[in-house]
Amino acid sequence: MKKYLVINGVNLNMLGVREPDVYGKNTLGDLEALVSEKAKKLGVSVDFYQSNFEGEIVEKIHSALGVYDGIIMNPGAHTHYSYAIRDALGSVKIPTVEVHISNIHKREEFRHTSVTAPECDGQICGLGFKGYELALEYLADKG
Amino acid sequence: MKKYLVINGVNLNMLGVREPDVYGKNTLGDLEALVSEKAKKLGVSVDFYQSNFEGEIVEKIHSALGVYDGIIMNPGAHTHYSYAIRDALGSVKIPTVEVHISNIHKREEFRHTSVTAPECDGQICGLGFKGYELALEYLADKG
Amino acid sequence: MKKYLVINGVNLNMLGVREPDVYGKNTLGDLEALVSEKAKKLGVSVDFYQSNFEGEIVEKIHSALGVYDGIIMNPGAHTHYSYAIRDALGSVKIPTVEVHISNIHKREEFRHTSVTAPECDGQICGLGFKGYELALEYLADKG
Amino acid sequence: MKKYLVINGVNLNMLGVREPDVYGKNTLGDLEALVSEKAKKLGVSVDFYQSNFEGEIVEKIHSALGVYDGIIMNPGAHTHYSYAIRDALGSVKIPTVEVHISNIHKREEFRHTSVTAPECDGQICGLGFKGYELALEYLADKG
Amino acid sequence: MKKYLVINGVNLNMLGVREPDVYGKNTLGDLEALVSEKAKKLGVSVDFYQSNFEGEIVEKIHSALGVYDGIIMNPGAHTHYSYAIRDALGSVKIPTVEVHISNIHKREEFRHTSVTAPECDGQICGLGFKGYELALEYLADKG
Amino acid sequence: MKKYLVINGVNLNMLGVREPDVYGKNTLGDLEALVSEKAKKLGVSVDFYQSNFEGEIVEKIHSALGVYDGIIMNPGAHTHYSYAIRDALGSVKIPTVEVHISNIHKREEFRHTSVTAPECDGQICGLGFKGYELALEYLADKG
Amino acid sequence: MKKYLVINGVNLNMLGVREPDVYGKNTLGDLEALVSEKAKKLGVSVDFYQSNFEGEIVEKIHSALGVYDGIIMNPGAHTHYSYAIRDALGSVKIPTVEVHISNIHKREEFRHTSVTAPECDGQICGLGFKGYELALEYLADKG
Amino acid sequence: MKKYLVINGVNLNMLGVREPDVYGKNTLGDLEALVSEKAKKLGVSVDFYQSNFEGEIVEKIHSALGVYDGIIMNPGAHTHYSYAIRDALGSVKIPTVEVHISNIHKREEFRHTSVTAPECDGQICGLGFKGYELALEYLADKG
Amino acid sequence: MKKYLVINGVNLNMLGVREPDVYGKNTLGDLEALVSEKAKKLGVSVDFYQSNFEGEIVEKIHSALGVYDGIIMNPGAHTHYSYAIRDALGSVKIPTVEVHISNIHKREEFRHTSVTAPECDGQICGLGFKGYELALEYLADKG
Amino acid sequence: MKKYLVINGVNLNMLGVREPDVYGKNTLGDLEALVSEKAKKLGVSVDFYQSNFEGEIVEKIHSALGVYDGIIMNPGAHTHYSYAIRDALGSVKIPTVEVHISNIHKREEFRHTSVTAPECDGQICGLGFKGYELALEYLADKG
Amino acid sequence: MKKYLVINGVNLNMLGVREPDVYGKNTLGDLEALVSEKAKKLGVSVDFYQSNFEGEIVEKIHSALGVYDGIIMNPGAHTHYSYAIRDALGSVKIPTVEVHISNIHKREEFRHTSVTAPECDGQICGLGFKGYELALEYLADKG
Amino acid sequence: MKKYLVINGVNLNMLGVREPDVYGKNTLGDLEALVSEKAKKLGVSVDFYQSNFEGEIVEKIHSALGVYDGIIMNPGAHTHYSYAIRDALGSVKIPTVEVHISNIHKREEFRHTSVTAPECDGQICGLGFKGYELALEYLADKG
Repeated sequence: MKKYLVINGVNLNMLGVREPDVYGKNTLGDLEALVSEKAKKLGVSVDFYQSNFEGEIVEKIHSALGVYDGIIMNPGAHTHYSYAIRDALGSVKIPTVEVHISNIHKREEFRHTSVTAPECDGQICGLGFKGYELALEYLADKG
Repeated sequence: MKKYLVINGVNLNMLGVREPDVYGKNTLGDLEALVSEKAKKLGVSVDFYQSNFEGEIVEKIHSALGVYDGIIMNPGAHTHYSYAIRDALGSVKIPTVEVHISNIHKREEFRHTSVTAPECDGQICGLGFKGYELALEYLADKG
Repeated sequence: MKKYLVINGVNLNMLGVREPDVYGKNTLGDLEALVSEKAKKLGVSVDFYQSNFEGEIVEKIHSALGVYDGIIMNPGAHTHYSYAIRDALGSVKIPTVEVHISNIHKREEFRHTSVTAPECDGQICGLGFKGYELALEYLADKG
Repeated sequence: MKKYLVINGVNLNMLGVREPDVYGKNTLGDLEALVSEKAKKLGVSVDFYQSNFEGEIVEKIHSALGVYDGIIMNPGAHTHYSYAIRDALGSVKIPTVEVHISNIHKREEFRHTSVTAPECDGQICGLGFKGYELALEYLADKG
Repeated sequence: MKKYLVINGVNLNMLGVREPDVYGKNTLGDLEALVSEKAKKLGVSVDFYQSNFEGEIVEKIHSALGVYDGIIMNPGAHTHYSYAIRDALGSVKIPTVEVHISNIHKREEFRHTSVTAPECDGQICGLGFKGYELALEYLADKG
Repeated sequence: MKKYLVINGVNLNMLGVREPDVYGKNTLGDLEALVSEKAKKLGVSVDFYQSNFEGEIVEKIHSALGVYDGIIMNPGAHTHYSYAIRDALGSVKIPTVEVHISNIHKREEFRHTSVTAPECDGQICGLGFKGYELALEYLADKG
Repeated sequence: MKKYLVINGVNLNMLGVREPDVYGKNTLGDLEALVSEKAKKLGVSVDFYQSNFEGEIVEKIHSALGVYDGIIMNPGAHTHYSYAIRDALGSVKIPTVEVHISNIHKREEFRHTSVTAPECDGQICGLGFKGYELALEYLADKG
Repeated sequence: MKKYLVINGVNLNMLGVREPDVYGKNTLGDLEALVSEKAKKLGVSVDFYQSNFEGEIVEKIHSALGVYDGIIMNPGAHTHYSYAIRDALGSVKIPTVEVHISNIHKREEFRHTSVTAPECDGQICGLGFKGYELALEYLADKG
Repeated sequence: MKKYLVINGVNLNMLGVREPDVYGKNTLGDLEALVSEKAKKLGVSVDFYQSNFEGEIVEKIHSALGVYDGIIMNPGAHTHYSYAIRDALGSVKIPTVEVHISNIHKREEFRHTSVTAPECDGQICGLGFKGYELALEYLADKG
Repeated sequence: MKKYLVINGVNLNMLGVREPDVYGKNTLGDLEALVSEKAKKLGVSVDFYQSNFEGEIVEKIHSALGVYDGIIMNPGAHTHYSYAIRDALGSVKIPTVEVHISNIHKREEFRHTSVTAPECDGQICGLGFKGYELALEYLADKG
Repeated sequence: MKKYLVINGVNLNMLGVREPDVYGKNTLGDLEALVSEKAKKLGVSVDFYQSNFEGEIVEKIHSALGVYDGIIMNPGAHTHYSYAIRDALGSVKIPTVEVHISNIHKREEFRHTSVTAPECDGQICGLGFKGYELALEYLADKG
Repeated sequence: MKKYLVINGVNLNMLGVREPDVYGKNTLGDLEALVSEKAKKLGVSVDFYQSNFEGEIVEKIHSALGVYDGIIMNPGAHTHYSYAIRDALGSVKIPTVEVHISNIHKREEFRHTSVTAPECDGQICGLGFKGYELALEYLADKG
């Protein structure tokens, strides 16, 4: 069975608390339940990881090598400056989809740019929690 | 039954011909067949439109008002400068997902920016033809 | 009798529909009626043209040479990038006033700049439909 | 009877002297006579003020609060850097039209930008002295 | 007894009138009363000065040399472009605290930068009228 | 016999009318006659196309695939922003020479940059109508 | 009794060691003692936290929700790039004052900008350790 | 006898007080005495004017028309942003030399640019008080 | 008989050695032979000059005044920064065509700009050695 | 015996795995063995440290004060944005050489700049593992 | 007797030939005669040097050390990019005045900046040949 | 025996004279002696070359082809703008190490960038004369 890893980065443990008008009222637990259910439907396995530390995310990516068939990652604010996470992705070359819950193109200027996306297969933004499900579908479909 | 419109913009009629190493060898017909099948599975209706004229795309968006429940749009190169298409979307306020077949963040600098995305729900890029299917799933899911 | 041409560019057929909080609820028909009435008062003739195609606007400007004594033009979003329309104006050298219904200086950064204005006599912005009437008055006054 | 204030800023007392090829040979007196006549036609009252001091213009704007129904202002070179005048307008929120005699978009780069326009209803430029008359007409029309 | 000078720059006489949602409803008089009371508590003397003229502020700073032990200055919009005030402070080298009532980092881009702050001891922003009291406390504490 | 296509873009139908001090007094017809004569000398066939529509130029390029051995294109003002035309050239990979009648490096800043040139073999500018003849000679020479 | 949290970020444990000509010879312990004393005078409670890890500061901010009535934070070098800390503040919406010991406007270009300040009530810089005391006074005064 | 006007702008009354390591210990009086002596040698007349008000300098320039054969001006910090003074010079077209006591190219970035110099004959900087004498010699020599 | 000068600038003596995938395997000698032959066909005379010294190229241009009817110049890397060569061309005003063997618009960013082209009649790039022949044809045709 | 510390930052534990075409196939262990051997030859002692956490690197630098005679540091991607590491180096003022295995000037734009180098003695890049040996030789030679 | 060196850089041998409307019709010989005469009046000695080679100017500056009491230099176009000449001046620290015949602030953007001026005492521009005389007077006066 | 070439560029003949606080008091002769000794130890041959002419350095690089096994080059100020030297290195593809005596990242902004480094193996800066020795060791080690 194919195995996938969902990494939620900095501040995403605050889902449901942080700016509910932007991110909705559902929590990280709700999100993970949703993605688990999707995984069941797709017949794949999925693990979850959340951290507020750039270093932990980097090491989680390193440790995914040879273990996971794909990564779904929402790097939170690190999207906009963490060349370290970008290079971690470049080190392992695992198929990865970057996901953002909100439409980053509607927000502050600095959120329009992703320094991590060039090392991913692609990016989904603005489609809410659904974006994670779609990313999983893409990866599962890829085989 | 919910109705959706898929708009493929400038040069997308050349799919399968243009830079096959970037966009793959499948044609626009293949893409539309794929999305039609997806629509059937989702129990929704989908129409297709392709044009190389900014003006035609603008008017197609205008005419979608009150007719379609959502738009999936790949504006091609117009993504990067057509404020006209951006304003057309702003005029009709129909839920829209912008799709790019390739990962625009891996390519030339000018392709990193979308002037149309701020008027969409969100954007999917780099996931190939699959991106259109996922966009449809998102819209259908939205109701 | 002096003859003037009013060109409304891309998306202006959506007046009354598009962002009514920015542009008001009146339609393009209302606008044209207003300007017609003004023309009558000023004892001049006025024709109207609307298109969502850059190419059609360019050709309308070409065809105005030797026919019209002045042009009132609202290029919509093309204001900000259509060097083609700019050059069309430069080709015919007909007295032209650029009009914007909203105050472009209060809106997004990209709307602050006009690439077409340098080939016009001047620009009126932010004065609503009234801006068209004033532009006509200026042209009529110029003789 | 509605009362309006026309403020001519720095160097505008030199009208007719300064760069006559740009601004014409008529003087500030000529301009004020023209606008007075227009006011009479429109059945409104108009006062004139000219100053070369940013501080005096700021205070004139302050003192207009509750006295005038609208302001017509040509801030001269202060247009391009006087955030102080911008804030003065923001303090009183009186309907204001910014007027420039020449087409600022045809001149040096630094003249293309107005820091004061975002606090005005709109801007008229390039229509000569006529621009003041049109601004008055707009304000009077507004009620 | 230590003597301090509080300079309120351009438009600050409009406090309570100008953008009350940003600056509050209290007036300049209220502010000065508050700071006077604070001065009494601290056992220091304080003088107040307000002007809308850059030139007057420059000369007030010049005249403070040898008279005051410190300056509290809110240069208003001049903060963002008055190199003249900056140089005036550089000429007298009196300990100075720059104060802004609102948080300039939350507002328009141009307000984020202070050209006067490099010639001050430091800057307090966003703490309302209280910022003036704290500035006085700092100066009094400095001796 | 080798076949070549000459595409003249937006506003080039105004040759002889538009800014004769920049582009000369000869018309598009004169230009085409000149190039035809050159073709005869070179023993090659040449077709001509002019359009003011970006979309038509894009489609003309698409349709050139398998028909023409080379393209000579003057995209007019589209040179400076039409990524759509750039991508059309990238789709067909036909040997193309970009030609400008005037020396774009002597004119306004925005004319110095070509977004279409990177998808051409090369560019000729500033050599008047002769530039088209030389481009044809290059293509014919290439075989 | 009101409770406040003082967060000193990266490298601030080196106070008294690092660049004493910029930051003085007093240590972090000295600073905390000073602020404790101030707290006593104000009749409020204060806790201290120092970390060199962005992730720990993010989580400390998260955990402050519902516990502290305000935060005083000196993010050290993270001020200039940690959008993660900015978003953490945005998640909890606790009244926060950003403090810098030195005047950041007198130092290297990159230190002039704060990415965290827009999510704070305000900022105090350049007033040495006193800045922390003043920040506490502001927060206590706010209630 | 030829008449010249020496205008010293903002903060130059602080000569000898302000940053003596940059500007020297001599006062404005010393400077004027020096230039007077030079005038005597050259057989020309010279008047002096100093103001800290942009508005006064603008009006002094206006009033110089028909009175003086040349102007020597040190606009102080206004050099870097006063488009008002620039336009005042443009209004009167009197031969003018801009003088700076210090070498502006050795100082902060913002001092490298002069917005007033394009309306002068030329500029002398970095040659101390001597720069004024040389400017007078140039003007006198010009006739 | 008309006389023309071909100047090959810095590093062009390395033709055939330097980056043969970019510039081809033919040498400078081959290039000159090709152009000589073309000259014969055109019935004009041509001289060749190559130097790696900016100063020598400047002086060669100076000495061309009154001797040559036109210049063909490939300034190599000097194209991108030698304002000295630009001014040399401006001094002599001889009809000049700038030639680049490769398409500079396909290469590194810094190669897209030519500081010398504004003082030439025009520019040919990307057409290989043929570009020199075409330049000669243009000049000979000009008379 | 002199003691030196070698710090390898983020992702450098992936040496031999990450982009072997850029960094080679040898591992971090190989690198450390090489440097150990060099240390033996030079008669100095060397310790090794690797971390993917900015905070740990900051604290390692702090703890080096008074313990090590020099630092060799490869900050990985943190080179390009970690002002925190820069300030840590500034706090301890230990002689430090920054090393990069690849030539950062041949890679993506963002890798050309080092925010940490200004607090080092110098930088070695592009010389592979050898760069570390040379850095050690420099430090040992310095005494 | 004090000895001074006048260095005229690239293209200045073309004085009287090059753009006479900008630089006048007089030659370099005329200029040197003028300065010689001035030197005689001032009782100082002056040598002249002109070169179109950056390398020769660098070496002339080197060789001036211990020989000349001051340098007057017009670096021509090298002013705008020759950091080599800048460093040569920095090596010898001889009092130097940079002179430009025309007002560089009235010309193309790239001419507004001098990279050499920061290593000079000051700069004179726009005062024609007279600028050289004044520079000599300044140097002679300095002693 | 392997042969290496050490090229010292513009102004480096002034070593020991120029800014001794930056570059030390030792001369170019001292530097070459040091490197010669190192060469002896490494059992390789080394030649030295110094020039202040960009053209001579370009030609020296050309002539090194087939003669030297590696180049050590300090291009002095040419580092920051000589695309000509960059292209010379690109022509010969000899292993090259760029060396700077001082840490260019601690100095003026313009010195932070090297246009020549992308054509070298790598760069060493800030390690004084030792940098040359290390560069030689690297090259000799490379074989």
